[in-house]
Amino acid sequence: SKVVTLPGDGIGPEITAAAVAVLREVAPDLTLEEHAIGGGAYDQYGDPLPPRTRDALKDADAVLLGTVGGAHDSPWNSLPRALRPESGLLALRKELGCYANLRPVRVQPGLEHLSPLKPDLARGVDILIVRELLGGIYFDGDRQIEGGAAYNTMRYTTPEVERVAKVAFWAAEQRKGRVTSVDKANVLEVSELWRRDVQALRDRSYRTVHLNHEYVDSVAMLIVANPSRYDVIVTENLFGDILSDLAAVIPGSLGLMPSASLGDGAGLFEPIHGSAPDIAGKGIANPAAAIQSAGMLLRHGLKRPDAANQIDRAVALALRAHPTRDLGGQADTATFTRAVLSALE
Amino acid sequence: SKVVTLPGDGIGPEITAAAVAVLREVAPDLTLEEHAIGGGAYDQYGDPLPPRTRDALKDADAVLLGTVGGAHDSPWNSLPRALRPESGLLALRKELGCYANLRPVRVQPGLEHLSPLKPDLARGVDILIVRELLGGIYFDGDRQIEGGAAYNTMRYTTPEVERVAKVAFWAAEQRKGRVTSVDKANVLEVSELWRRDVQALRDRSYRTVHLNHEYVDSVAMLIVANPSRYDVIVTENLFGDILSDLAAVIPGSLGLMPSASLGDGAGLFEPIHGSAPDIAGKGIANPAAAIQSAGMLLRHGLKRPDAANQIDRAVALALRAHPTRDLGGQADTATFTRAVLSALE
Ligand SMILES: CC(C)[C@H](C(=O)O)[C@@H](O)C(=O)O
Ligand SMILES: CC(C)[C@H](C(=O)O)[C@@H](O)C(=O)O
Repeated sequence: SKVVTLPGDGIGPEITAAAVAVLREVAPDLTLEEHAIGGGAYDQYGDPLPPRTRDALKDADAVLLGTVGGAHDSPWNSLPRALRPESGLLALRKELGCYANLRPVRVQPGLEHLSPLKPDLARGVDILIVRELLGGIYFDGDRQIEGGAAYNTMRYTTPEVERVAKVAFWAAEQRKGRVTSVDKANVLEVSELWRRDVQALRDRSYRTVHLNHEYVDSVAMLIVANPSRYDVIVTENLFGDILSDLAAVIPGSLGLMPSASLGDGAGLFEPIHGSAPDIAGKGIANPAAAIQSAGMLLRHGLKRPDAANQIDRAVALALRAHPTRDLGGQADTATFTRAVLSALE
Repeated sequence: SKVVTLPGDGIGPEITAAAVAVLREVAPDLTLEEHAIGGGAYDQYGDPLPPRTRDALKDADAVLLGTVGGAHDSPWNSLPRALRPESGLLALRKELGCYANLRPVRVQPGLEHLSPLKPDLARGVDILIVRELLGGIYFDGDRQIEGGAAYNTMRYTTPEVERVAKVAFWAAEQRKGRVTSVDKANVLEVSELWRRDVQALRDRSYRTVHLNHEYVDSVAMLIVANPSRYDVIVTENLFGDILSDLAAVIPGSLGLMPSASLGDGAGLFEPIHGSAPDIAGKGIANPAAAIQSAGMLLRHGLKRPDAANQIDRAVALALRAHPTRDLGGQADTATFTRAVLSALE
C-alpha cells in the first residue's frame, strides 16, 4: 500500500519523522512518499496544497499529516485566505473526501492527574467525537466580506447528514451503543434538518443504538461537568471543531490526541495539536499523537488492526517509562521515539 | 422606576418570587409589574411574548426574567418555531434592543471545591464574557428548511460589531484592562470582519486596553485548561452562547450565575440556568442567581450600586450559612431567601 506523508510546518516534520520510523518498523512493506503542504509549501511552490501533492494523493491508500500553520505573527497569516496554510488543510480534506473526523478522547488509567478536571471526573472518560468535516459553514460557497458587512452560510443536505451519522452509529455499535447528536435546533433551521435526519436514520437502520439529542451549549457544559455521560458524540463541522478541541483537554495533554478523517477514499490521519512554532526544531516535541495517528492509519486506513495494536501498546509503555516534557517527564523526541521502537520489538 | 418581572416557566416563578422579595426590601420605591412569557404565555395567550407583555415593556426601566421552556418531551417543543418558548425569549431580547449580554464568571473564595476543575485552576477565576446578543446566525432572516436541505446565515455589520465591542472595552477599563476577542477568522469571512472592526475600534478609541484575538476552538480549550488567563472575553452570538455556558460550569453551580443584557433601552436581567422542570414547584430551587440578577438590575439597569452591593453581600452570607442542595447544603428556596432577607437588615 502507498502512504503519503505530509510533514507540514512547525514541529510537523519532527513528529512525522518519528511516526514514519514506527510505521517502517511495524509495516516495512509500505511505500512511503513525502510531499509538501501548508506554509512551507506556499513558500516553495506558491500554493499551500501544490499540484505535485494533489497528484500524489490520487493513488494513495492513506495519508499521514503532521501539522500546518505558523506563529500568530507569521507573514503567512496576512496572505489572501486561499493561500494561507489552513487553506491547504481544508483543501486536503476536500480533495480526499474525508467527511467524518474521528476524535477519540480517552483518559489513560494512571494518567488522571494530568487532567485539568478533578481526578474523579476524569477517571474512565472514553468518548469518541465524530465531527462532520466537509460541510456546513466551513465550505459553503455562499460567503462574502464587502465593506462593512460580511456573512457565511451554514448549510447541510440530508445526504451530508446521513453519511456522517452512519459513521457515528457504526462506531457506537463497536462501543457502548450510545450516540448523542449535538445541534442548536431550538434556534437554527439547519439544526432542525440535522436532528430530523439523524433520528430518521437511527429509526430506519440502527434500532439497537440509543440516540439522544442535546444542544451545543448544554454539551459544552456537560462535557466538563460530567464527561462520563458520553459515548459517541456526532455533530456538524463548526460545533465539532469547538467540542472536539474542548474535549481534547480532558486527558491533560494535546500531545496524546490522534485523529482519523474518513470518507470514500484514502483516510487522513493527524495529531490534533498545532504546529507549536515556539518549540519547532528543538527536538523536544512529543511525537506520541503523531505515532498514535500512524496507529489509526493502520487500523482504519489500511485495516491492519494487529499492527495498530502493537503501536498502541508500545506507546502506552513508552509513556510510562519515558514521558516527554509536556507530561512532566524528561524525554525528548528522539528518546521517546526510541522507547516506542524498542517496546515494539 | 418601573420594573417588569417575567417569571416564565418551570422554576421561574419560584425563583423570581424570591428575587422580587429581595428587590422590595432594598428598593421599596420600585413599581413592579408582572407579565407572561414563554410556554405558559403560549398556553394562556397563544403567543410566547404576548402583546400585553410587549406593551408593558415600552415604559419599563428594567426587566427581571425568570426562566422559559419546558422539559425535553414538552409539547411546546413540537410547536412551529415562532410559537416555542425560546422564541419568546429571542423576541424579548430583540424588543428591548439588548445587544450585549454580560456574563460574569467568578469563583468565590472558599467555594473552589465546587468546581469540576482542580482547585488550583479554579481559584481566583474572574472572567466577564460579553456576548453579542442580537445578530449573527440567531436572527438573520436569510434562513430556510425545505425538503432535504436547510441553511442559516451568520452575518454581521460594522455597527453591530462596534456597539458590543464598546461594552467590552468599557467593562475592561473597570477591570484588569484586557480584552480577548474570539472568532474563527482562519475560516470565516464574517469573523474576519469581526476581528478587523474590533481591532480598529481599540486602536481608535481604547488605546489603554490590551486587546488580543483568539480562535473559538482554542478558547474552548484554554478556558478549561487555564481560565485565569482571561479578563474580558467578547464574541459573537453563537460562539458566546457556547463559551458562556462552558465558562459557567467553572464555579461549580449554575445556581450562582446571573446575567445582564444591555442595549439602548431597558436592560434585561436573568439567571443563566434553565427552567429545571424536574424540580419545578417543589420549593427546592436555588434562587441565588435570580437574586443576583436583581442585583445586576439595580447596578446596571437602575444605576443603584449601593443597593446592588447590599444584595451581593447578603447573598454571599446566605450561601455560607444556608447553602441549597445543589451546593451540597440543605436549604430550600424559602430558607435561603429568608437568609438573604435577614442578612440585608
Ligand atoms: C486550522 C483549522 C482550519 C482547523 C479547523 O477548524 O478545522 C483546526 O482547528 C482543526 O480543528 O483541525
Ligand atoms: C434558549 C436559547 C435560545 C438561548 C440562546 O441560545 O440564546 C439560551 O441558550 C441562552 O443562552 O440564553
